[in-house]
Parts: sequence; structure tokens; C-alpha cells
Amino acid sequence: MSQFSAATRLRFVLVGTQHPGNMGAAARALKTMGLARMVLVAPEKPLDEEAFRRSAGAEDVLGDAPVVATLAEAVADCTLVLGCTARARRVQLEEYLPSDAAARAVAKAGEGAEVALVFGRERTGLTNEELQLCHAAVHIPSDPAFSSLNLAAAVQVLAYETRMQLLGTQPAVEAEAASREPVASHEQMESFFAQLGDTLDEIDFHKGRAPESAMRKLRRLFLRSEPSEQEVRLLRGILADAQRMARLAGNHGKEG
Amino acid sequence: MSQFSAATRLRFVLVGTQHPGNMGAAARALKTMGLARMVLVAPEKPLDEEAFRRSAGAEDVLGDAPVVATLAEAVADCTLVLGCTARARRVQLEEYLPSDAAARAVAKAGEGAEVALVFGRERTGLTNEELQLCHAAVHIPSDPAFSSLNLAAAVQVLAYETRMQLLGTQPAVEAEAASREPVASHEQMESFFAQLGDTLDEIDFHKGRAPESAMRKLRRLFLRSEPSEQEVRLLRGILADAQRMARLAGNHGKEG
Repeated sequence: MSQFSAATRLRFVLVGTQHPGNMGAAARALKTMGLARMVLVAPEKPLDEEAFRRSAGAEDVLGDAPVVATLAEAVADCTLVLGCTARARRVQLEEYLPSDAAARAVAKAGEGAEVALVFGRERTGLTNEELQLCHAAVHIPSDPAFSSLNLAAAVQVLAYETRMQLLGTQPAVEAEAASREPVASHEQMESFFAQLGDTLDEIDFHKGRAPESAMRKLRRLFLRSEPSEQEVRLLRGILADAQRMARLAGNHGKEG
Repeated sequence: MSQFSAATRLRFVLVGTQHPGNMGAAARALKTMGLARMVLVAPEKPLDEEAFRRSAGAEDVLGDAPVVATLAEAVADCTLVLGCTARARRVQLEEYLPSDAAARAVAKAGEGAEVALVFGRERTGLTNEELQLCHAAVHIPSDPAFSSLNLAAAVQVLAYETRMQLLGTQPAVEAEAASREPVASHEQMESFFAQLGDTLDEIDFHKGRAPESAMRKLRRLFLRSEPSEQEVRLLRGILADAQRMARLAGNHGKEG
């Protein structure tokens, strides 16, 4: 089952939201992460201009969100319901980190189940009765001394972890790696180091000191950066010009 | 070294922010994740009531944030600078996922280095010149069809990943890292690049071609390898001898 069909079975449920702007910002957070399903449970105020302004292009997600009266109604067809709590261990529910919650949510949705991630009120969160409807709690491990994330920021963190799970094997990184220049071979590196050694001699870098220590340090530095073939060609071009200058200077010395 | 001392060496840099409210929301995002250091580079407008209102209890983080004129100034003493980009592969920088970027940032800070995470303007992000100052890019893998996260939401994601790393820091890594040479600072690297640019001119490397492309490639190569102070001194010694040869050759040319 593809990541996309799994995404369509994940809904983000906002319960009793106090500021319409936060519903707009939450819609934007979802859409940036390729998610589109939001459900609004008894918001304190209806959607307004501020809500649509803060959705900043996610008006579709915001406008399509059903408004229902109770959390029970919002999650009626769900087989997994995860409730976000700011304070850890307030209720006796199993508690997940966001990454583990997202992994479980995406796995369930991938099996064809409907899944809900539930977010409470800005000030007071979810009631104990609402948490009773959840299969487990999700806790963003904030600083206990200052734990209140903005509602849309909490949605962003969970949506981000959900997307990371949907992307699974991190194709972004793989694509980047594939597009990188071919890395220089051992042989190409050794030819470069040989030319570097010659150049240091010719520009009289060592001035009587043993060359081994400097060469050892330079090998370590350049090997660490794993230069591409193109980068090695660039470096060798620079060395060639330094060698040319050294020869011109040397001829001058001999002539002088 | 404890997670807390590592946190004190991590700064979040906001460049050219257009809406003061976003600076407040970013301060809140940091504080919820136990982070406190923000630097503001040339914000379009000064902090206002909206900024402090949206900081929602993080007035200390917001009020303590130094305001400086340029990104270079904000990161002058940093040995690792990571720039957030909305679009992947716009510049030829190594690109990290947020979790990898946070792992690297926390590891570096754990070694005692100063580290910056840099966030650009709401509409236009970081300029190419600003990205040139970064050692690598961070890309939140948003939906390419709707990729624009709210600035504070992007800060929240990176701050969250940073906190996850701080909470999970492996002492073994810190011990190993502590034995490494001190890494060259931003300022030391810029002085090296300036001398490298001069040297390329003096040995007539460019031969009429525009120097920017070669310098961009060399910056990327050397920033990637994160040279120690000692390695930078070694490289600058080599450049000095190449420059000496070029001057001797030049004198020869003039005399000939």
C-alpha cells in the first residue's frame, strides 16, 4: 500500500480550539507535510478571516475540515486514536514519543485502518473524558519548566514525524547522494598526493624540516572530505600553477 | 559535558525576519524545547507588542536576543553553521534532514564548539551569499507542492529535533570528540578563503575565467572537511609559499 493511500486515512482532530487563527496555522502545517485531513470538534469560534489568512495557501484543508460536536463523533470510525498531552503521565495511558506515535499511526493506516491524532484546547488540553477515548497518549518532550507549545506548533511536530514515517526510507537523502559527483578513487587521490608532495618541495615549503609530518596531516584532511573527481581536478590545477610559478622563480634564481 | 552546557552553545539565527510576530513565536518554540539563544539579523521591523504577545511567556528569550547587521557577524565565532532551505538542491551544499542536522549540531556543541542554525526570510529564505557562509544546508522534507512552512514552525521542528538529540546524547561520542583539535572558527575560515582567493589570482589560476565558480567549489570542499585551527595554519603556510614563488616569478617576468 503506498504512502499516499496511508496518508488519506490519517486525520488530525482539533478539539475545542479557542483561537480561529490556530486552526488556520494547523491547516498550513498539515499541508506542508503532504497531509490534508483535519476535523474540528466544537471550536469556540467559527472560522474567520484570521484563520484563512494564517492558513496561507491551505484554505482547501481548512475549508474542507468537517465541524462536529464531540470527539466521539470525530473518531467514530477510527481503530487507532492517539491524544496529544502537554503533561506526561496525567492519565494512565501508554505514552509515545512523537516519532513512535507517527510510526504506529502510519503502520495502522497502511493496513487500511482509519487513524486519528487528537489535539486539545490551547489552555487546558484534552479533558480526562476525552483522553479516555484515546488508545494511547503522545507527549512532545518539552522542557517541563515551559511546556506549552503553540497548538499549530504541536500539530507541525506530529505532522512532520508523520511525513518522515510516510517517506520511510528517506528518499530525499538517497536522491541527494545519487546526484553527487563521483568520489575520487584511491588511485586518483594518490596521484593528487604525489603532486602535492612535489609541489611542497618545489615551493620550498619544508625549509629543511622533514616532509612526512605535513604530508600526513594533509592526507588526513583531504581524505576526510572525500573529494569528488571534479574537486581533485580543481586542486591539481591549482598545484600545477603553483609549480609553474616555482619553476619561473627558480629560473630567475638560477639566472640571478 | 552535559546536555545543558551543549544547549548553551547552540544559537538559532533569524535573518531578515519580516513579521515581528514570527520572532516572538520562534522564541516560544525555542523555550518549549529548553533552548534560549536567539540572534536577530537585520529584522525588517523592530520587536513590537505582537512579537511579545506571541512569545507567550518566552519574553526573556526574545528580549535577550542580540540584534546584529549581518549574518557574518551573527556567526563569526561559530565552527558549524547550518542554513535552513525550503527548496532542496538550490545550492550545492551538503544537505541534511532535520534529525541529522540536529545530531551534528549537538555533537559539535558537546565538543565545546559554537554552533548556529540559520533561518531566512519568510518569503525569500536565505540569499545565495548567505548560504555561502553555511557549512551545510538543512531541508525539512515538506511536500514539494506546498513547501512553505511558517518560520516559527520551521524553528519548532529544528528545536524539537535538537531537544531529542540533547535528551539522547551519547557520552561515548562526546569523549571521542573531546580529543580532537579545536575546529577553525568562521572568521579563521574566511581569512583562509581570502588568502586562497589572493593566491589563485597571483599564480594566475583563473586565466581570464570568472573566479566565482572555482572559489565556490573550494569553499564547499574545505568547509565540508571542517579543518582544525592547526590544519588551517598548515594550509595558509602552503599558500604563503606559493604566493612568495609567484612574486619571485613576477619579478622575473618584469625584469626579463
